[in-house]
Amino acid sequence: MCRLAAYMGPEIFISSLVTEPKHSLIHQSYHAKERIEPLNGDGFGIGWYAPQFCDTPAMFKEVSPAWSNQNLRDVARVTKSSCIFAHVRAATIGGHLSRTNCHPFTWKNYMFMHNGTVFGFEKIRRSLRRQLSDETYEMVKGTTDSEHIFGLFADRVADFTEPTLDNLAESLIGAIGDIEKLKSDAGIDTPSTLNLVLSDGSRMVATRYVTRGDDSNSLYFASAGQYSCIEGVCHMDEGEDAFLVVSEPLDGSQTWQRVVNNHMILVDEHKQVLLRSIEL
Amino acid sequence: MCRLAAYMGPEIFISSLVTEPKHSLIHQSYHAKERIEPLNGDGFGIGWYAPQFCDTPAMFKEVSPAWSNQNLRDVARVTKSSCIFAHVRAATIGGHLSRTNCHPFTWKNYMFMHNGTVFGFEKIRRSLRRQLSDETYEMVKGTTDSEHIFGLFADRVADFTEPTLDNLAESLIGAIGDIEKLKSDAGIDTPSTLNLVLSDGSRMVATRYVTRGDDSNSLYFASAGQYSCIEGVCHMDEGEDAFLVVSEPLDGSQTWQRVVNNHMILVDEHKQVLLRSIEL
Amino acid sequence: MCRLAAYMGPEIFISSLVTEPKHSLIHQSYHAKERIEPLNGDGFGIGWYAPQFCDTPAMFKEVSPAWSNQNLRDVARVTKSSCIFAHVRAATIGGHLSRTNCHPFTWKNYMFMHNGTVFGFEKIRRSLRRQLSDETYEMVKGTTDSEHIFGLFADRVADFTEPTLDNLAESLIGAIGDIEKLKSDAGIDTPSTLNLVLSDGSRMVATRYVTRGDDSNSLYFASAGQYSCIEGVCHMDEGEDAFLVVSEPLDGSQTWQRVVNNHMILVDEHKQVLLRSIEL
Amino acid sequence: MCRLAAYMGPEIFISSLVTEPKHSLIHQSYHAKERIEPLNGDGFGIGWYAPQFCDTPAMFKEVSPAWSNQNLRDVARVTKSSCIFAHVRAATIGGHLSRTNCHPFTWKNYMFMHNGTVFGFEKIRRSLRRQLSDETYEMVKGTTDSEHIFGLFADRVADFTEPTLDNLAESLIGAIGDIEKLKSDAGIDTPSTLNLVLSDGSRMVATRYVTRGDDSNSLYFASAGQYSCIEGVCHMDEGEDAFLVVSEPLDGSQTWQRVVNNHMILVDEHKQVLLRSIEL
Repeated sequence: MCRLAAYMGPEIFISSLVTEPKHSLIHQSYHAKERIEPLNGDGFGIGWYAPQFCDTPAMFKEVSPAWSNQNLRDVARVTKSSCIFAHVRAATIGGHLSRTNCHPFTWKNYMFMHNGTVFGFEKIRRSLRRQLSDETYEMVKGTTDSEHIFGLFADRVADFTEPTLDNLAESLIGAIGDIEKLKSDAGIDTPSTLNLVLSDGSRMVATRYVTRGDDSNSLYFASAGQYSCIEGVCHMDEGEDAFLVVSEPLDGSQTWQRVVNNHMILVDEHKQVLLRSIEL
Repeated sequence: MCRLAAYMGPEIFISSLVTEPKHSLIHQSYHAKERIEPLNGDGFGIGWYAPQFCDTPAMFKEVSPAWSNQNLRDVARVTKSSCIFAHVRAATIGGHLSRTNCHPFTWKNYMFMHNGTVFGFEKIRRSLRRQLSDETYEMVKGTTDSEHIFGLFADRVADFTEPTLDNLAESLIGAIGDIEKLKSDAGIDTPSTLNLVLSDGSRMVATRYVTRGDDSNSLYFASAGQYSCIEGVCHMDEGEDAFLVVSEPLDGSQTWQRVVNNHMILVDEHKQVLLRSIEL
Repeated sequence: MCRLAAYMGPEIFISSLVTEPKHSLIHQSYHAKERIEPLNGDGFGIGWYAPQFCDTPAMFKEVSPAWSNQNLRDVARVTKSSCIFAHVRAATIGGHLSRTNCHPFTWKNYMFMHNGTVFGFEKIRRSLRRQLSDETYEMVKGTTDSEHIFGLFADRVADFTEPTLDNLAESLIGAIGDIEKLKSDAGIDTPSTLNLVLSDGSRMVATRYVTRGDDSNSLYFASAGQYSCIEGVCHMDEGEDAFLVVSEPLDGSQTWQRVVNNHMILVDEHKQVLLRSIEL
Repeated sequence: MCRLAAYMGPEIFISSLVTEPKHSLIHQSYHAKERIEPLNGDGFGIGWYAPQFCDTPAMFKEVSPAWSNQNLRDVARVTKSSCIFAHVRAATIGGHLSRTNCHPFTWKNYMFMHNGTVFGFEKIRRSLRRQLSDETYEMVKGTTDSEHIFGLFADRVADFTEPTLDNLAESLIGAIGDIEKLKSDAGIDTPSTLNLVLSDGSRMVATRYVTRGDDSNSLYFASAGQYSCIEGVCHMDEGEDAFLVVSEPLDGSQTWQRVVNNHMILVDEHKQVLLRSIEL
C-alpha cells in the first residue's frame, strides 16, 4: 500500500504537507497508522504546478525512502504551489523498485496518484494494454496497476475537448469500471482498492473505492478554509478556500473529515466541494 | 539502532544469514522485534572473508534499504564464506546517510560492526580524534561513534605483533574504556550501549555492554554445531563447529542463547567459545 | 552506446574482465575508444554462473556509473566464475534510467546482452509485443529494444526441448530476422546494430550485425588459451581453453581478433569456436 | 576537477544556467572543453536563495551524474532565484562518493564552491583541523579540501559582526593563505588550484588562483546586463544588472570575459564588479 496527500488552494509551501505536520507524509513513510504495515519506504514522489507552468507539473520522485532524503526536505521547504500531490510508496518486499513506478504520474496537464491495489492485476495487464490507444500505450512507461488506470483515464478524457469537472469524474469512474470489467472477463474474483486522486491544476477528483464490502483504504478531506501548519498542528482557518485530501489525518486536530466508502469528491476551480457516491 | 548478525564456521552461503531464515537480517530490516522502533531502513552492509582473500575482507554496503536490494539477494544467494558479518542500519530520522557510515568497517584483516549508541558522542568526537595515531586518524573516514570505536581498537591492537585472542579482547575492552573515560572527562553522564563484533577471519570477539543498569541491546549466540537454514528454520546440528552471534534470533527455534548483560564472547580458531564478564 | 565483455573457460575472477586490464570494462565506462562518444556512465551490469547455480545466473546491476561503484570492485575482486558477462551502458542523454533496463538480462538459464540500437524501435514496440507469447510478454519487464530482442529469442528457443548450439544460433538469428521484418512491415528504413551475446552457461553465441553497409559496432574475440590478466596486460597462454568476446580489446596486446561484419561466433561446451556469416 | 557556474541578479530560472545554454553545466558534466578530462560525472549540486529564505540557501545535491537526473531537470525548470550556484564534480576514479562531499557547501547564510585541488591535502588535513574553532570543526562534515577551505573562511569571517564585501574578500584570501602556510609548514611543494566562489545571497566573491605559474583552471565572467538564455544562446542585454561567473563559457557568444590568473572578482549588492589581484 501507500499513503498520499493532495492540496489545492492559495499557495503554500510543500513542506506544509510533507514535513511540518506532526503526522506529515514523511512521518507516515515510517509510521503510518491506519494500515497493518506501517512502512512506506519504497520511494516517494511530489508533484506540483508551478506558477508559470500550469501545463506541465513539476515532479520530484525517488526510489529511496522519503525520511532520509535531504533534497526533498530542502525543495519542500522553499517551494510554493497552489496545487500539490505527495505520495510515499510501499512496494511488495523483494520487488524491484524503479522511479518509473513512483507516483504521482503526469500526462499533459494532469497529475494522478493511487493508494490501493488491483489484486490479480498481472492477469489482466496484457488485455488492458491491448485496449489502450497508441498514444496512451506509449505514455504508460512502467508496470504498476496505478499507471495503467491512469492510462485508461487518459483514453476516456481524450474524448472531451475541454472537459468539465463532471467529465473528469466520469472518465475516472469509467477507468474504474474498465478495471472491474477486465477482471470480470478474466474470471478474477479478488477486490480492487482504488483511492485515486486526479487534478488538472485547477480542479480535483478523489475516490475512495473498493470492489465490494467495506475494506477500502482510509481517506479524509478538509475544506472551506485557509490551510496552515504551525508547530506541527494543522489549521483550517476561515478565510480563503483550500482543499486537502489525505490517506490519514496529518495531525490529531478536528480538521479532518472521513470520506464514506465508495464515494468520490469533486472540487471545482472555486474549491467548491461536492460529495457523490460512486456508481459504475 | 541497528541489527547485526555474524557467522564463523564451515563455509555457508551468505543467504543463510541474510535472506533465508524466517526472521533473517533482511526481515529485521523492516520488522525488528526486540526494539521499540522496528525499522532499520537506512542502509546495510555485508562483509565476508573470501577463500583466497583472508587479508582483505570483501564488502557490499549501500545507503538504501536492504529489503529492496536485488543485488544483495543475488550476491548473498551464490556467495559462500566461512566468516560473514551482516548489518542493517537505523540512523536518526532526517540525518544524512553515507556509505562511509555503513557497517561493517574494515582495517587490515579486521572486520568490525556495532549495534548501539554512544549518547553524547558529538561532544567527545574532537578529543577522541586528538588521541588517535596518524594512521588511525586517516583510517576513520566517517562520522559515526562506531567507526571511531574501531579506530580506538586499531590503535590498541597495533601494540601486538601477532595478537592472541586475549589481545583482541583486551584491545576491544580497552576501546570501550577509552570511550567511557572520554565521556567522564567531558562530564557526560548518558550511557553507552556497545554491542560490538570483531573478527580477523579466524577468531571473533563480541560484547554486550551498557554503561550501567540493564538497558543494553539484546544479543544472542549459537555454537557447537553445523549451521544450516532449511525452509526458513535455522538448525545447529551436531557435527562441525560453527558459531553465530545475532541481535535477535533468526527464527523461533531453540538454537539461540541469550548473552548476559555486560559479558563478552571469545571464539578461537577452533570455534571454542568462552564467555567472560566485561571489566573495564 | 554501450560496451560489453563476456568470458567462458576455466574459473577466473570477475575482476580479470572488469577492473584489472589496462582497458578494462570499467576503463571503457569513461574512456571507450572505438566510439565517437567515449562515455558509458548510465549504469552497468555483471552476470555470472556460480558453481552450484548453473540454472540461475547471478546478477549485479546498477543505474549509477561503474567507475565509482565500490561494491562492484569488491564483488569482482573475490568472485570466480567460468562464465561471466559484463556491460556498461550509455543511454540517451536526459533519458530515464532504470535497473530494469540494465544489461545483462536473464531468463531461465540464459543470459543475454546487447551493444547497438534498433533505430525506430519505439514505432515497432507495440506490434513486437503483440506477437510475444504470454510467458515472454511477462518476462520482458523493461522498455529497451535489447530486452525485447531477448524476448523474441526466448519464444523461438522454447520450440526446442534440449536446444543444440545450432538451435541457439538459429533462434538468435531468428530474433534478428523478426526485428528486420517488423521494421520493414512498418516502413522503417533506419538500420539496426545488433551485437548480441547469449549464453546458457556452457555455450555461447555472439553476433556482429548491422542491417546493411559496414557501420556495425566493433567486436573482438580471443580463444584457444588460458586467459589471465597480469599488471593490466591480458594473456592467452597455451593450455586450457578459454573464450572471450569484447566490444573493444581489453589491452593493447596481440590477444584480440576482429570479428568480421555480419558474422557470428558459436562456442560449444569444449570452447571450440566456429565463425559463420549471418544469413537472415 | 570540476565545473561551476554562479549567478546573481534579477530572478531567473535555474534552468538558464543548468540545462538551457548550449554548453550548460549539464553539458559540461559530460563534455567539458577546457580540461584534459571531459567528464564530471561524480555528482552535482545546485544551491539557491529562495525569496523568503535569504538566511538559509536551499540545496539539491546528488552523487549520481547530473546528465541523467530527472529531478534536477524539473526542479531547475520551475524554480527561480536571484542567486544560484551550480557545480558538477569529477572525483578521483575509484574514489568513494558521498553527498557530504558534493558542492556547494553552506554555513549560516553563506554558500561556497570550489574548482581545483590542493595537491597533498591529505598531509595537512589533520593540522588544518587542529586550528579550526570548535564550531567550525563540527561544521565541516566531509573529507574534501574544498569544505576545509570553507571552514577556514568561516573562522576568519566570524571576526566581523557585519562583514563588508571587503571583509568577505579578505577572509577568503586569508583562507587561501592558511592553506599555503599549512603546506609550506609541512614541506609540501605541489601547487594548489583554488577557483573559489562565495556568496551571502546579495554579494559575491570569486577567485582564480594557482600557487605559482599560470596553470590555474579557467574562469570567466559576464556582467552589466540582463541575462537570458534563448534557444541555447546566452544573452547579456542592457537593462538590469546581472553577474555570472563560470568555469567555461555557457555558449559560444561574446558574453564572456576571461578572468586573469591570480585575480579575484568582488560583486557588491548593486552588482557593481571590481577586479583585484590576489595578494596573500
